Amino acid sequence: MRPIVTLTTDFGSSDSFVGAVKGVLLSRCPDVQIVDISHDVPPRSIRVGALRLASAARYFPKRTVHLCVVDPGVGGERRPIAISAGGHFFVGPDNGVLALAALGRKRWRAVELANPRYRLSPVSQTFHARDIFAPAAALLACGGSMEDLGPDLRNPARIRWPRPRRSNGRLLGTVVDVDHFGNVVTNVSRRDLEGRDVERVEVGSVSITSLSTSYDPSRRLVAILSSDDCLEIAAPLGDAAAMLDVRVGSPVEVWFARHRVLSDAASNGVDG
Amino acid sequence: MRPIVTLTTDFGSSDSFVGAVKGVLLSRCPDVQIVDISHDVPPRSIRVGALRLASAARYFPKRTVHLCVVDPGVGGERRPIAISAGGHFFVGPDNGVLALAALGRKRWRAVELANPRYRLSPVSQTFHARDIFAPAAALLACGGSMEDLGPDLRNPARIRWPRPRRSNGRLLGTVVDVDHFGNVVTNVSRRDLEGRDVERVEVGSVSITSLSTSYDPSRRLVAILSSDDCLEIAAPLGDAAAMLDVRVGSPVEVWFARHRVLSDAASNGVDG
Amino acid sequence: MRPIVTLTTDFGSSDSFVGAVKGVLLSRCPDVQIVDISHDVPPRSIRVGALRLASAARYFPKRTVHLCVVDPGVGGERRPIAISAGGHFFVGPDNGVLALAALGRKRWRAVELANPRYRLSPVSQTFHARDIFAPAAALLACGGSMEDLGPDLRNPARIRWPRPRRSNGRLLGTVVDVDHFGNVVTNVSRRDLEGRDVERVEVGSVSITSLSTSYDPSRRLVAILSSDDCLEIAAPLGDAAAMLDVRVGSPVEVWFARHRVLSDAASNGVDG
Repeated sequence: MRPIVTLTTDFGSSDSFVGAVKGVLLSRCPDVQIVDISHDVPPRSIRVGALRLASAARYFPKRTVHLCVVDPGVGGERRPIAISAGGHFFVGPDNGVLALAALGRKRWRAVELANPRYRLSPVSQTFHARDIFAPAAALLACGGSMEDLGPDLRNPARIRWPRPRRSNGRLLGTVVDVDHFGNVVTNVSRRDLEGRDVERVEVGSVSITSLSTSYDPSRRLVAILSSDDCLEIAAPLGDAAAMLDVRVGSPVEVWFARHRVLSDAASNGVDG
Repeated sequence: MRPIVTLTTDFGSSDSFVGAVKGVLLSRCPDVQIVDISHDVPPRSIRVGALRLASAARYFPKRTVHLCVVDPGVGGERRPIAISAGGHFFVGPDNGVLALAALGRKRWRAVELANPRYRLSPVSQTFHARDIFAPAAALLACGGSMEDLGPDLRNPARIRWPRPRRSNGRLLGTVVDVDHFGNVVTNVSRRDLEGRDVERVEVGSVSITSLSTSYDPSRRLVAILSSDDCLEIAAPLGDAAAMLDVRVGSPVEVWFARHRVLSDAASNGVDG
Repeated sequence: MRPIVTLTTDFGSSDSFVGAVKGVLLSRCPDVQIVDISHDVPPRSIRVGALRLASAARYFPKRTVHLCVVDPGVGGERRPIAISAGGHFFVGPDNGVLALAALGRKRWRAVELANPRYRLSPVSQTFHARDIFAPAAALLACGGSMEDLGPDLRNPARIRWPRPRRSNGRLLGTVVDVDHFGNVVTNVSRRDLEGRDVERVEVGSVSITSLSTSYDPSRRLVAILSSDDCLEIAAPLGDAAAMLDVRVGSPVEVWFARHRVLSDAASNGVDG
């Protein structure tokens, strides 16, 4: 099997940054298969970068190396690191961008990328993806070991992730993402809803009764479990975020039926 | 030769959808070469997706698997399918998005993707590209057979494609695409023009005399045969669609010379 | 090692142009590894295409073939060419887009792509990337020789690149690029600054004292050496080009200290 390196960055696609990183990877690990996850993380958004990486990485085979660079502090004091977890490797800045994908598991190991042998020389002040992260990812992809990269690191950075709160029989959640289709993704997970009957979801100034099981085109808005098992509000034929005028950080309320009853699909509907 | 899977979707490049699909492909067919055709099909535009796929697919080698997902009905009743035609494989929803590329030939075979063995488990309600289409594409790429995927399907969905009409010595066509450069692509094909002399092309409020053979920078607008052998209106130094204020669906008229004469290149010019 | 072909174009990502080129490459050199550098060069901007290619290409291994197509004169009189230089190959139109990457070295060799065997048949009027450049790149990637492609060419096109001028103890430079983050890249190189103390950089209506060594988030604006060793003005937490209201072509002045002194890091600051 050929070694795989995935790329998740906020570099955009109009400059030569991504190209230079790929050149370094191929120069140092000629057999590598490079896979773009996304280069359109909003500039400097560690939270979105962490989310994109975590969402895609788990579908890749073992031994994949995930290079993820959203690095507002490049050249400053944050450390460059690699983490191994769950049979995958993660390489990037120690600012939390790797945390959702790599540190959610019980066992992980982190090292600081300190070995000058696995850096370009000289290292630029502004482009560590090319000069530090890509050489480290190439080493791991081609079978090198974490030890070669540098000393162990005890406390890699984590990020705060909002959790929904329970209050008076309802769940108070938050919009955490809006996707390309305008679908509104919340921090309410499948587990938060298990064993309970959703009576309605309130978001923007709209109330949506019960959960749907498809992007039913006969409905203007649906509440549904997303492909990452989170509560999502979607407009089957449009842009839900625009229709609801919500964005990341907007509140979402989930109301449960007081007495557990079988949901009545025929009564599904949108009011508001 | 390594197996090839191409991707054509409306997923955009800012989310992790494309990355997750690539992860599934590589997990199930480790040697696969993944090739992005486009992820910027306008959201839910089956017609544009069908056009992009048909235009690019024919340049790929035999045995290429084309995964094409523009799927507004995901989770609803439309079936997931695979089609083999002309030595290529096509995988996607049965909504017409595969039709232009796969069903234009005399011989094709379609199957429904019904075998749970070639699906992720569980299958999500909203992301069949990852959970159903990618596993099926991986199977075909790695040498699996259509039979393995499910039962034959007799009538895969087709899409209506507008054809130009003849009327009083002229051809009444339609704009079917506007490309990245603002070039205006019509549904008038090379075959529609064969053996006839184009006197002028009328589009927007402009009349363009005769056909050009290059994007001649000395002309403001040219009518030319596109790389897909369709009549195209281009502004060699600008954006023709913006200059003409036309869009998909706008009318185009082609007027032919009454008596066949040799075209006089020196008289080429734009009026309007 | 698998052969590598990189792609740098102004084709955008919404059409099927890039897909068709990839199909031709894979049909003619099945083992090729295709690497996207960028398809978002501004339409017809030869200068930006040349810059992107030069910036990324040097990080790729020897024998890489760089296909670079920004081709406003497609179908006209500009010749299709290939250049070998520094162990790399460059394929594209002879309009200067290959010049910065390929012709800066002492030794290079250029040929015209004249051999019909390494073209699709027929060649379209508007898409030479697919019909002429991709087949030539595939030949070189799979071990073919420059001789096979056509006769030698003595004077491939070059492009003018602005150089900074010295005047009264200061350096008068120009903005040559604005990147995805809004960082402002100038034509003042590391070499232009060597052995001298930068007192201040004037750009827009702002004066920035001395050079920084990182995107220090405590500063509103920094002057720093870019990853390509050029003077760059960056806003560590924002978009410098927008803040300064500058664009490509805007002037930049670098003032040097009259007497060489050790720079005083504590006095760094932004006025203006």
